Amino acid sequence: MKIISFSTLSGPSYGFVTEAGVVDIGSRLFGRYPDISAVLAADALGEMMVHARAAADFTLADVTVLPAVPSPLRKVLCVGLNYRAHVAEAAGRQVPEQPRIFARLADTIIAHGAAMWRPANSGHFDYEGELAVVIGKAGRHIPAERALEHVAAYTCFNDGSVRDYQKHSVTAGKNFPRTGPLGPWLVTADEIPDPAALTLTTRVSGEERQRTSTGDMILGIPALIAYISAFTPLAPGDVIATGTPEGVAHARTPPPWLVPGDTVEVEISGIGILRNPVVAEP
Amino acid sequence: MKIISFSTLSGPSYGFVTEAGVVDIGSRLFGRYPDISAVLAADALGEMMVHARAAADFTLADVTVLPAVPSPLRKVLCVGLNYRAHVAEAAGRQVPEQPRIFARLADTIIAHGAAMWRPANSGHFDYEGELAVVIGKAGRHIPAERALEHVAAYTCFNDGSVRDYQKHSVTAGKNFPRTGPLGPWLVTADEIPDPAALTLTTRVSGEERQRTSTGDMILGIPALIAYISAFTPLAPGDVIATGTPEGVAHARTPPPWLVPGDTVEVEISGIGILRNPVVAEP
Repeated sequence: MKIISFSTLSGPSYGFVTEAGVVDIGSRLFGRYPDISAVLAADALGEMMVHARAAADFTLADVTVLPAVPSPLRKVLCVGLNYRAHVAEAAGRQVPEQPRIFARLADTIIAHGAAMWRPANSGHFDYEGELAVVIGKAGRHIPAERALEHVAAYTCFNDGSVRDYQKHSVTAGKNFPRTGPLGPWLVTADEIPDPAALTLTTRVSGEERQRTSTGDMILGIPALIAYISAFTPLAPGDVIATGTPEGVAHARTPPPWLVPGDTVEVEISGIGILRNPVVAEP
Repeated sequence: MKIISFSTLSGPSYGFVTEAGVVDIGSRLFGRYPDISAVLAADALGEMMVHARAAADFTLADVTVLPAVPSPLRKVLCVGLNYRAHVAEAAGRQVPEQPRIFARLADTIIAHGAAMWRPANSGHFDYEGELAVVIGKAGRHIPAERALEHVAAYTCFNDGSVRDYQKHSVTAGKNFPRTGPLGPWLVTADEIPDPAALTLTTRVSGEERQRTSTGDMILGIPALIAYISAFTPLAPGDVIATGTPEGVAHARTPPPWLVPGDTVEVEISGIGILRNPVVAEP
């Protein structure tokens, strides 16, 4: 199922996206779980499913989409240099033996459709299309062969990067506010039997800039979950972004940096299209 | 004033530390502000001060100390390589032109007196005594010359580091659970007229390992706040750890890694002593 987080005049909620629109599940569960992370923490996707055939309450256009995992976001952990051709274009160095991890602060994450902020103090603003994993079952020291049992859902991520600050430290370059679109919705893991067989494409104002199979990751999702859970406990609602393939602006000559007026789309087969306009930081 | 966050059988609270003990201010303000971050956000230190001369409600031994800024902790941003002699011992490279920033996840932060966890999967566990700054007034793009207006208080931090994982990525090495003691309390900025004139010492089981003046920082607190607020908005309760001086275990031969049974003390003049035992991760 596709699970969307959204708000209306009645407040925030979540529900299913069907061909007819949005089925509001938050209201049908009488606020028992305030958000989708609470549903996952209570292992209550089954309770949601009882209402899967209900009529749509809203059209997609009627709701304000929230980030696919809305606030409070506990952990957003991202992997750098996880596709060989991107390692070559970005760093010109050897493939790292261990994943490079960085954290994103919650105020960097925005919804499908929300405006990405091109920083006031940098023009070196870049896109990075990525597959994101949402944890459904808590764990620490998770072995790779059991890692997929801990995945509740998948979604698209755009790891908007400020390249001049990233040269100082990856944390600085990846944490400008409103640079990380996550969505448009979650697709539950049962609909993605092989997360290494998806096609990811990134387009900027209609022009394709990145295209890969997620099978080209250096470390697949099981290995990433094993590595990350070796240093930090994972819990329902935590997000892992799995890295971007080649084709970023930074590696092109001259770099086609994102500018106000651009629209970035990250599309992943079986998931959907995450589309965001770029505006100047107000 | 010294402001401590603590819990008793009545729940979490905060208050003043005086020679007589702890004056419970959370209860005197009738829960108007649930924690010290809420006091700072409401600019309500003055309301607290009305009760500064009240009699102590508890002895220090009667309360369970919480981290100097308790959960929910929004942002803990740390600076690497900010003392010249530590740059030399840690990296053997040139002093970075810009600060190296990394983020700590909330579940790494513990209180004065709480046990630090030596990881189950690494023995390369190291101490790093640091001065930490707590933000009192929100800001973005804060100029250095106004930065200290945004500081509410100071405290001690021990940036417990897992050196083998840190070689993979700083985020991994700095985010093992329960490795970051913060406390013992906040000392309000009015009592620290010059944060660059403090003496910081770190002791392991009584043996001095680090000693510096905070004036030896490469980038002082105003420059750090200016740099950090250039990429991320700062808000009341956010914490900036300003980096560690020379003397870490990693740079000694053989490295005297922290082991279960050790006690680490970070002492800063005018603030106090942050003391934590080390135990094996359970």
